[in-house]
Amino acid sequence: MYLTQPLHRNAQLQPDALATICGDRRFTFGELRSEVASLAGGLRGLGVESGDRVAILALNSDRYLHTILAVAWADAVVVPVNTRWSVKEIAYSLVEADVRTLVVDDTFSELAGALREQCPELSTLIHCGDSDTPVGMVPYEQVASSGPIPDARRGGDELAGIFYTGGTTGFPKGVMLSHRNLFASAMGSAASGAWSTRGRVLHVAPMFHLADLASTIGHMLLGGTHVIIPGFDPVATMTAIAEQGVTDVLLVPTMIQMTVDHPRLKDFDLSGLQVLMYGASPISEALLERARGAFPAARFLQAYGMTELSPVATMLTDEDHRDPVRRRSAGQAAPQSLVKIVDLDGSEAARGEFGEIVVSGEHVMLGYWKKPEETAAALRDGWMHTGDGGIMDDAGYVFVADRLKDMIISGGENVYSIEVENVVAKHPSVLQCAVIGVPDDRWGERVHAVVSLKPGAALSLDELRQHSKADIAGYKVPRSLEIVETFPMSGAGKILKRELRKTMS
Amino acid sequence: MYLTQPLHRNAQLQPDALATICGDRRFTFGELRSEVASLAGGLRGLGVESGDRVAILALNSDRYLHTILAVAWADAVVVPVNTRWSVKEIAYSLVEADVRTLVVDDTFSELAGALREQCPELSTLIHCGDSDTPVGMVPYEQVASSGPIPDARRGGDELAGIFYTGGTTGFPKGVMLSHRNLFASAMGSAASGAWSTRGRVLHVAPMFHLADLASTIGHMLLGGTHVIIPGFDPVATMTAIAEQGVTDVLLVPTMIQMTVDHPRLKDFDLSGLQVLMYGASPISEALLERARGAFPAARFLQAYGMTELSPVATMLTDEDHRDPVRRRSAGQAAPQSLVKIVDLDGSEAARGEFGEIVVSGEHVMLGYWKKPEETAAALRDGWMHTGDGGIMDDAGYVFVADRLKDMIISGGENVYSIEVENVVAKHPSVLQCAVIGVPDDRWGERVHAVVSLKPGAALSLDELRQHSKADIAGYKVPRSLEIVETFPMSGAGKILKRELRKTMS
Repeated sequence: MYLTQPLHRNAQLQPDALATICGDRRFTFGELRSEVASLAGGLRGLGVESGDRVAILALNSDRYLHTILAVAWADAVVVPVNTRWSVKEIAYSLVEADVRTLVVDDTFSELAGALREQCPELSTLIHCGDSDTPVGMVPYEQVASSGPIPDARRGGDELAGIFYTGGTTGFPKGVMLSHRNLFASAMGSAASGAWSTRGRVLHVAPMFHLADLASTIGHMLLGGTHVIIPGFDPVATMTAIAEQGVTDVLLVPTMIQMTVDHPRLKDFDLSGLQVLMYGASPISEALLERARGAFPAARFLQAYGMTELSPVATMLTDEDHRDPVRRRSAGQAAPQSLVKIVDLDGSEAARGEFGEIVVSGEHVMLGYWKKPEETAAALRDGWMHTGDGGIMDDAGYVFVADRLKDMIISGGENVYSIEVENVVAKHPSVLQCAVIGVPDDRWGERVHAVVSLKPGAALSLDELRQHSKADIAGYKVPRSLEIVETFPMSGAGKILKRELRKTMS
Repeated sequence: MYLTQPLHRNAQLQPDALATICGDRRFTFGELRSEVASLAGGLRGLGVESGDRVAILALNSDRYLHTILAVAWADAVVVPVNTRWSVKEIAYSLVEADVRTLVVDDTFSELAGALREQCPELSTLIHCGDSDTPVGMVPYEQVASSGPIPDARRGGDELAGIFYTGGTTGFPKGVMLSHRNLFASAMGSAASGAWSTRGRVLHVAPMFHLADLASTIGHMLLGGTHVIIPGFDPVATMTAIAEQGVTDVLLVPTMIQMTVDHPRLKDFDLSGLQVLMYGASPISEALLERARGAFPAARFLQAYGMTELSPVATMLTDEDHRDPVRRRSAGQAAPQSLVKIVDLDGSEAARGEFGEIVVSGEHVMLGYWKKPEETAAALRDGWMHTGDGGIMDDAGYVFVADRLKDMIISGGENVYSIEVENVVAKHPSVLQCAVIGVPDDRWGERVHAVVSLKPGAALSLDELRQHSKADIAGYKVPRSLEIVETFPMSGAGKILKRELRKTMS
């Protein structure tokens, strides 16, 4: 398979159906094939050669998707840049990947000077924004009107993209994914019935992230229309769902929460949404309940994985969400994926015992760009060592450590944070919450609730304790409460408990 | 991907769920993994080495499926033998594929002597039947109790099997399919939502045929249970569907017809069937109507392809069946597949114009075994040249020539057989029918109906003409009628019109 295959197929089967909707711009599949063929011709005309890396630094737009396809069509390799990184991190990745061509939008064109300075090899900047093209850049429209070239049909085990990860916590690593890797994950999800056929998928999660690219490929396979907004915003998201007939969306739990708790929720008809896929962290029972109310027709699906797995390893089905235990897991191995939990010595752990999550399948990355040692450490005997800890139950449900190890030992009793969080989150005043263990002279660790409140709401520790006692044992009830305005979040929209713990230790 | 991957995955996720049901024998996925590991050990113990070909000549049974999996587990290549072939044809394929190990059941063990004589290299015969093991053969049970070996995880581009085709019409050719080929087709069908998740699939079409193997792989991917009967028989099929909770079945139209027109139809509860996939030829409007009545909950899906395409190229959805024009087509390209119609010079034909159907994708065979010239002729620039003629409409629906060229020119007017057949088939006395053109002094060709009747029914030409005139133009109405007991059928269950024409010319 190859990234542009579904473009050819859709242009044949439904040339007049909409492929992309972005603001006022619309492309049918027939138009998109012409646009991509011509954009690819423009890239070659600018000196891009087979195997060259072409980077994109931009908010979401149709041009982001068109560029990804055109880069493959031109036999080149795409490098989507994390828009949340510092200039220094971005420059590091561009230099390491030897990027000479960069596509930037209005939001990031102001970084051009600094990037040119720090990336001596960077010779061509293409401006894909809507305002005037800055001096020294080539307008996207000019590249896209260069005349078509034949599709290189780059595919199979050939490199499709380099996807940098880890920028905020350590040295960035460029994950090399082949076309085959990307399709293995997308086909596996599609085979699981993850997405609607010929649906309308809303791109609200950042397009540089592999989760969004995976849903892009899945919906291209299934002939869907891509509705694209610049980034997450609750009102923009609800507007798009209601007005564009969106059937499928990929979000992270924080985005779900910000949407379903938004005061304007009732202003929008969200009943058309069929599939709500989320990742990055599990969803609390209370949030799930509110989300089911807000999106009454939607199936809820969780995917767990990482960039190195293109990205899906396991999936939690809508039905699984109705099981109080399984809902806390990341689900079961997706069809293309084998998953096991291994001990330090590499042997498989017994069910229910803690170990490292390892994964094999055609979705496992080719390796880290220019990092043979890190590649050898991560890929052993064909198994990707995720670095995530976890346990697996008798039916193969994987509980990821960040969630499961998220356990407090208080007075000798084990308290699972998620269980307490599920109860706290149900309190009508609570907007978002995290429960952590903090050092305590008497209890060893103390159950500590960190909470943000809904507008105008108030909450006392006594009230929270009364509320919690109805559902959980006394030793699990929070012994201290901290009200915050916002939480420290990861790039993927996950509450960073390690940051919360730092401030308490 | 590799053939045994879904076995590992299912044994992990649902070890106690039923994998195979055959007569009184049942295997859970946990048991099946052990059985296959041990059977593979037995094959190696009998001298099977990496890459060796192991043939199977048997009616359908659980042991057929177990053997396919064990051969892959043992790093070998499976050669399923067409049970309808003559001894000479079988021997030809075994010799050409250099088969030294053959698995036979009770039905075919009597051919052993002749095959040994004609295949000097054939050294090991394994008896997988239920009666006593003939002298000189190794009992299946003995092979399967040899102790497990580790899975070779043979996969990717490695050869999975050699599938002989064309035996009845020409020189047999061995189609070489890799594991990747097989999964590309199965994943594409699964992504189209072709099969039920964790359903129960009935194996009634012959297991040596790739259509059945494709559904086997699809259901293994989706965690389903395989209900296996020796071969097609209307009552056995209905019994299995009713008593074993069958959700999915793959049939050819003749099997559908023989089932839905069976006098005992009403004795069985067939309402559990969710998916009825068929291939080999389109279904007539009248038969479809009766079949929808017999299987009220079933979605009808047609797949078109060939062994060389592992085997699916296009699919016709249930919804497509409700369109009177599209129903006559073979549907649209499946997700893994690109399809086009080309002229003799290889350039793409305009929509609506006749040409050869060519197909590309990862499901295209590696080539023909030991036939480099035939391989080069079939595979050009990555496109499989099917040898089938056809046209494609504006929405990519493919009309296969055997169906479309099936046109009669009578008195200068074009008459499409299928249109007439649809009308004839609606007559209450008609069981099965075919309409062909026969030489006629006055009309050039005459519209000639060949019909088999329901038990006890009668039909005159006058009555048929009266019936037909209500629906179609006078020049399309049959001018002659022939009543037959049975039709000449292809191995795939398709009426052989060329045989009918022979008897009339």
